[in-house]
Amino acid sequence: MSHPHPELAPPPPLAKGALRVVALGGLGEIGRNMTVFEYAGRLLIVDCGVLFPEEEQPGVDLILPDFDYIRDRLDDIEAIVLTHGHEDHIGAVPFLLRERADIPLVGSRLTLAFISAKLGEHRIKPEVVQVEEGERRSFGDFDLEFFAVNHSIPDALAVGIRTPAGSLLHTGDFKMDQLPLDGRITDLGGFARFGAEGVDMLLSDSTNAEVPGFVTSERDIAGVIDNVFAKADKRIILACFASHIHRVQQVLDAAQAHGRKVAFVGRSMVRNMNIARDLGYLKIPGGLLVDVKELDGLPESEVLMVCTGSQGEPMAALSRMANRDHQIRIEKGDTVVLASSLIPGNENSVNRVINGLTRWGAKVVHKGNALVHVSGHSSAGELLYVLNMVKPRNFMPVHGEWRHLRAHARLAELSGVPENRVVIAEDGVVVDLYKGKARIAGVVQAGYVYVDGNSVGDVTESALKDRRILGDEGFISVVIAVDSTSGKFIGEPQIHTRGAGIDIDAYDEVIPKIQSALERAASDGITDPGQLRQLVRRSVGRWVSDTYRRRPMIVPVVVEV
Amino acid sequence: MSHPHPELAPPPPLAKGALRVVALGGLGEIGRNMTVFEYAGRLLIVDCGVLFPEEEQPGVDLILPDFDYIRDRLDDIEAIVLTHGHEDHIGAVPFLLRERADIPLVGSRLTLAFISAKLGEHRIKPEVVQVEEGERRSFGDFDLEFFAVNHSIPDALAVGIRTPAGSLLHTGDFKMDQLPLDGRITDLGGFARFGAEGVDMLLSDSTNAEVPGFVTSERDIAGVIDNVFAKADKRIILACFASHIHRVQQVLDAAQAHGRKVAFVGRSMVRNMNIARDLGYLKIPGGLLVDVKELDGLPESEVLMVCTGSQGEPMAALSRMANRDHQIRIEKGDTVVLASSLIPGNENSVNRVINGLTRWGAKVVHKGNALVHVSGHSSAGELLYVLNMVKPRNFMPVHGEWRHLRAHARLAELSGVPENRVVIAEDGVVVDLYKGKARIAGVVQAGYVYVDGNSVGDVTESALKDRRILGDEGFISVVIAVDSTSGKFIGEPQIHTRGAGIDIDAYDEVIPKIQSALERAASDGITDPGQLRQLVRRSVGRWVSDTYRRRPMIVPVVVEV
Repeated sequence: MSHPHPELAPPPPLAKGALRVVALGGLGEIGRNMTVFEYAGRLLIVDCGVLFPEEEQPGVDLILPDFDYIRDRLDDIEAIVLTHGHEDHIGAVPFLLRERADIPLVGSRLTLAFISAKLGEHRIKPEVVQVEEGERRSFGDFDLEFFAVNHSIPDALAVGIRTPAGSLLHTGDFKMDQLPLDGRITDLGGFARFGAEGVDMLLSDSTNAEVPGFVTSERDIAGVIDNVFAKADKRIILACFASHIHRVQQVLDAAQAHGRKVAFVGRSMVRNMNIARDLGYLKIPGGLLVDVKELDGLPESEVLMVCTGSQGEPMAALSRMANRDHQIRIEKGDTVVLASSLIPGNENSVNRVINGLTRWGAKVVHKGNALVHVSGHSSAGELLYVLNMVKPRNFMPVHGEWRHLRAHARLAELSGVPENRVVIAEDGVVVDLYKGKARIAGVVQAGYVYVDGNSVGDVTESALKDRRILGDEGFISVVIAVDSTSGKFIGEPQIHTRGAGIDIDAYDEVIPKIQSALERAASDGITDPGQLRQLVRRSVGRWVSDTYRRRPMIVPVVVEV
Repeated sequence: MSHPHPELAPPPPLAKGALRVVALGGLGEIGRNMTVFEYAGRLLIVDCGVLFPEEEQPGVDLILPDFDYIRDRLDDIEAIVLTHGHEDHIGAVPFLLRERADIPLVGSRLTLAFISAKLGEHRIKPEVVQVEEGERRSFGDFDLEFFAVNHSIPDALAVGIRTPAGSLLHTGDFKMDQLPLDGRITDLGGFARFGAEGVDMLLSDSTNAEVPGFVTSERDIAGVIDNVFAKADKRIILACFASHIHRVQQVLDAAQAHGRKVAFVGRSMVRNMNIARDLGYLKIPGGLLVDVKELDGLPESEVLMVCTGSQGEPMAALSRMANRDHQIRIEKGDTVVLASSLIPGNENSVNRVINGLTRWGAKVVHKGNALVHVSGHSSAGELLYVLNMVKPRNFMPVHGEWRHLRAHARLAELSGVPENRVVIAEDGVVVDLYKGKARIAGVVQAGYVYVDGNSVGDVTESALKDRRILGDEGFISVVIAVDSTSGKFIGEPQIHTRGAGIDIDAYDEVIPKIQSALERAASDGITDPGQLRQLVRRSVGRWVSDTYRRRPMIVPVVVEV
């Protein structure tokens, strides 16, 4: 990622009495949220999440923050505070704990349950410190206070960070539903109290800063869901995020009211709902839940499946149902509900799923045609409440792309934060808070680290560039055998090609061109394999470009025998 | 594309006195609209457009309808009616005319000007038949009547088709702006008159059938544009579709009112606006237009650029400005307006452009934050007017994905068309109209034909499958030299790899595995190159899957020397 301030250099050492803030993810992007706070040589980390790849990162499974900035200082880390249990806040923890396993993980009960389950799959048993809203707790010089915030997962926290260099408030992800299902509202009063005490820097969630107004209450979905259930006389299949416990609760309540049995489908859905039920976050009436295998024995009008795949993930149950590639066959009259957001980048895959389901005769209910989803992030209206309550001396928008950070910065200025106290930083930009004023002090490495299969970091930008060329154009490999003693070419060049979309017979045309290039090289006394490869690359590249107007990758191979 | 009626077979010969309708594109997709009508052995084609590829078709430039169904019957074609000048309605004409150059092209003045300019680039001079609304004209047994329709390009037409087998109305793309800039409204009165005469089949645009209500008037954008101009004190850069003449007209009017000079940027924008001005569809006040080179001499507050690239196309001017890879450098305070729709599939690229422009300090106005675009397609409200006016005996929704076709079918049923007279067909599905009743009679070939570079049809589904694998995982090529006389392997296997993201030294591990597999083969007397390649593919594939959990393409090459 290029920086708008290309002049930035590595930062100077941190001044005595100053606090340093470096986001390794979450600034200039939605995902892999991770912020490192430094005071007097010690570090506190807030969140450690993953980013999901887009088509620019073909074949990549996950994108991690680059831990390079803290790699030599792992022992300086006092703790990692996890604000809530979403993947973009906890997903990279297993990868960081591989480097130092005993970093204390600080979070609420549900958040720790989710991260512990995930770490269990990686065979890591973490050091955990359970906290709750209203609690105050110190880690070295970092004196933390936790505030309840409402979000699309229960038990989310904001964190106040008091240090000798100043006080900060990091909201985490939040919204301000005033009638949440669990009655646990965002602690605006606490924010106000902390603000009155003097907050030197506010870091606040920018995801929906461009959206005017206020988020509808989660509770408003209930009537819509009820209406869908009332109208459906065959099976209902409902997809939503596997962490959205309140959404699932509302769906279970509707199922109970309308006499349907429920089966959870999808590994993460089953796992998370078990955790949520065991900890009391999800209330499941007795007899409501059945195993998916028992559904066949029930009348269609008494069936509800709650599954994953609401983002059109190709391997998830819902996509496979849409392709008739799943044991559950969609039939005319089935109702499918996508009770979730449409994460930017997933539009095509979700559209394919909707079309597939519609083709087989299902009625598809989604946020485009019914209020079956509300966002988990504050809109501009709510963000202004927080700015006005906290009255921060400095403001740094976090969790958002440039468009969101700028929009949030503008809100801060409108609310009275002076323009020169609003810091828009990208990942890796170093922000120092010194004597009450925040300023950009430099930049550190904060690029993408790719997880592909079971390896981390092996797939580089250069490999991705190759993948993009190969994916768009395929390759043509030309194998030439050279006698290692005489230096003479043996036989004809062999062509091997995939994805170039050129008939194999057409290559008969280029073989003589390669041969004459090689003959010229021989008569010029060129024997260096690098130069020979270059010659082959040029003659084949020119032929394919002139003949087909394409640029496949040309891979010349010289075999010395 | 799989069919929901996999039992469909090639259709029987067309009964005497029956009319056959086959869409070769536009059903089950948005784009490459093309419908073939057949009566008594003669063919009439309505539209011949292209589809733009998605990420499932990597490297493809365009997707054409498959002309296989008509290839042996090119001489039976009476004419191609072009309803309007958009690429998804005219873009494939040059490719069809390559097969028979003298097929008459029937259309309005602007439509013929656009297709003639395009054909000129392909060095084809077409036979054209210019028609206008209200006109009636026969091509063999096809007695055509043309109706004015309002759309996002001027001079669009619907076509009534009277044949001895029955009468049809094909709306083309349309909406029903009641106050269009050119005063040319959709001829609902004409539809009603035709309907009163008896329409056996209505084919109507389904693009926005899921959207409730009515489309806002194009004229309502004017106030918003005016407001943007009033607030901007530096440069304005406005991107929209190069065919949206009325949109550009409103922008030019605003420029004139606010004292800005205008330069058109982008080849298709310059070409189309010249055509539109020459034919009188675009009115440009004297002295308003300047060359882009003259802009540097003007104060920033007197500059407007109208350019292409509103869909985030990576090579267009706007994307390059967003990446600071263009002579026009975006600076703080510039205003960029995306006055266009966001075509599904382009969300990511448009988002990247918005973020890039925002990062450099531009204010970006787009349909997400201001009414700078209205759709060119009727919403459900308008579609019902047409259904109620025409009162067709049979209805076939066209121009849409499954979700849109189903939604439009539902509207038709609500308006009183009996369910068994509503035919939802996919591309290639054959619909016969016989004795006033439409029924599905079979299916013909109607797959995707890919244009890549300057070749048509060379890139096959199998090449695309290879590209998807290569793009996600890269490849590992293993070259083995074999002595052709002794059958013995010479030297070590050589590894060449791109995009697999595995360190080259790591392959030292797999070389002995390949060698021992080859030695076993030799001792078993296996010399067949196909079998040897299979052995290599298996040992490398197993190693990479076990070690890295990945599946790159393995390309074994046996060189006999």
